[in-house]
Amino acid sequence: MARRLVRFYYDIGSPYSYIAAHRIEELAAARGVEVTWRPLLLGGVFRAAGNTMPAAVPARGRYMLTDLQRWASHAHIPFRFSSSFPHNTLLAMRVLTAADADELIPLSLALFRATWADDRDIGDPAVIADVLGDRAEALMGKAREVGTKNRLRATTDAAVAAGAFGAPTFVVGDALYWGNDRLEWALDAARDR
Amino acid sequence: MARRLVRFYYDIGSPYSYIAAHRIEELAAARGVEVTWRPLLLGGVFRAAGNTMPAAVPARGRYMLTDLQRWASHAHIPFRFSSSFPHNTLLAMRVLTAADADELIPLSLALFRATWADDRDIGDPAVIADVLGDRAEALMGKAREVGTKNRLRATTDAAVAAGAFGAPTFVVGDALYWGNDRLEWALDAARDR
Repeated sequence: MARRLVRFYYDIGSPYSYIAAHRIEELAAARGVEVTWRPLLLGGVFRAAGNTMPAAVPARGRYMLTDLQRWASHAHIPFRFSSSFPHNTLLAMRVLTAADADELIPLSLALFRATWADDRDIGDPAVIADVLGDRAEALMGKAREVGTKNRLRATTDAAVAAGAFGAPTFVVGDALYWGNDRLEWALDAARDR
Repeated sequence: MARRLVRFYYDIGSPYSYIAAHRIEELAAARGVEVTWRPLLLGGVFRAAGNTMPAAVPARGRYMLTDLQRWASHAHIPFRFSSSFPHNTLLAMRVLTAADADELIPLSLALFRATWADDRDIGDPAVIADVLGDRAEALMGKAREVGTKNRLRATTDAAVAAGAFGAPTFVVGDALYWGNDRLEWALDAARDR
């Protein structure tokens, strides 16, 4: 039997990634599926895929706000659209790339919450440091290392190679699922392998 | 109590509209919701909203094929991606605009099926005539009338005014829902008015 595993690719600046991040562990556990969290740089994915932000089309941008509010309400998640969107998430994603395995999920959720519930600017190093608390000095130091930068680039490249063009993206074996709306299908596919 | 009504805006050339069209009546009936079918011209919506087809981004186009196959399989609907996509649906949508109220749904489903299950080119007037059968002469005649052309334009404009930027689009009162993925939420909203 193949491993019941979902790779979860996300960027803190992606609001649908925030919603997926808050839903994924409980839904995965209910299916006996394991999740590996893979922080990537969404800007790099957009560049590689030739994609643009949905908000580039005004009517679609307005709709997205409504749709996000509906999703947050549906999933009982606090949500306020970030007044600093779009963010430069490079430092945040490098910090998460440098995080230890056992702190990756809580730190990701804390950064998501700061951005999409508390309307703090995740592009501001001082905000990141404040969210990281006593891990700030170590992780922001590691974020500057070449090895960390290369790892973030490699994760982004791996997502693009798997067919990603946005976030959140879920990968199960060779199969790619795009968007918070497809989280259940991705988890079902992993369960049924 | 407000009317439990969903406006369903669609174009025969839109594969997600095809899937929604095959799902909507049963799901609406289960909720005691009424559906009004509103054929529009998706090309006109795209122009007005400044949107482009998802397939304009290659990785997204490839993913869309997979996602459509998954949806069709999930909903038990025959599906083959049309080899003549993208279609010029102007005549098809004018014909549907000219259709009588009691033939609009069966003719829409027949044209959807020809395009997305039987891989026939809905941009070809001969295909449209064949699908329309004994209604072909009357409806293709009415499709050429100025009143019909203006009505199709008015429907398209009304969708854009409601915030539409793609298809399928569902409108419940002032609320807009986009995409086959949001069909259930739109119907729930209509039920709960």
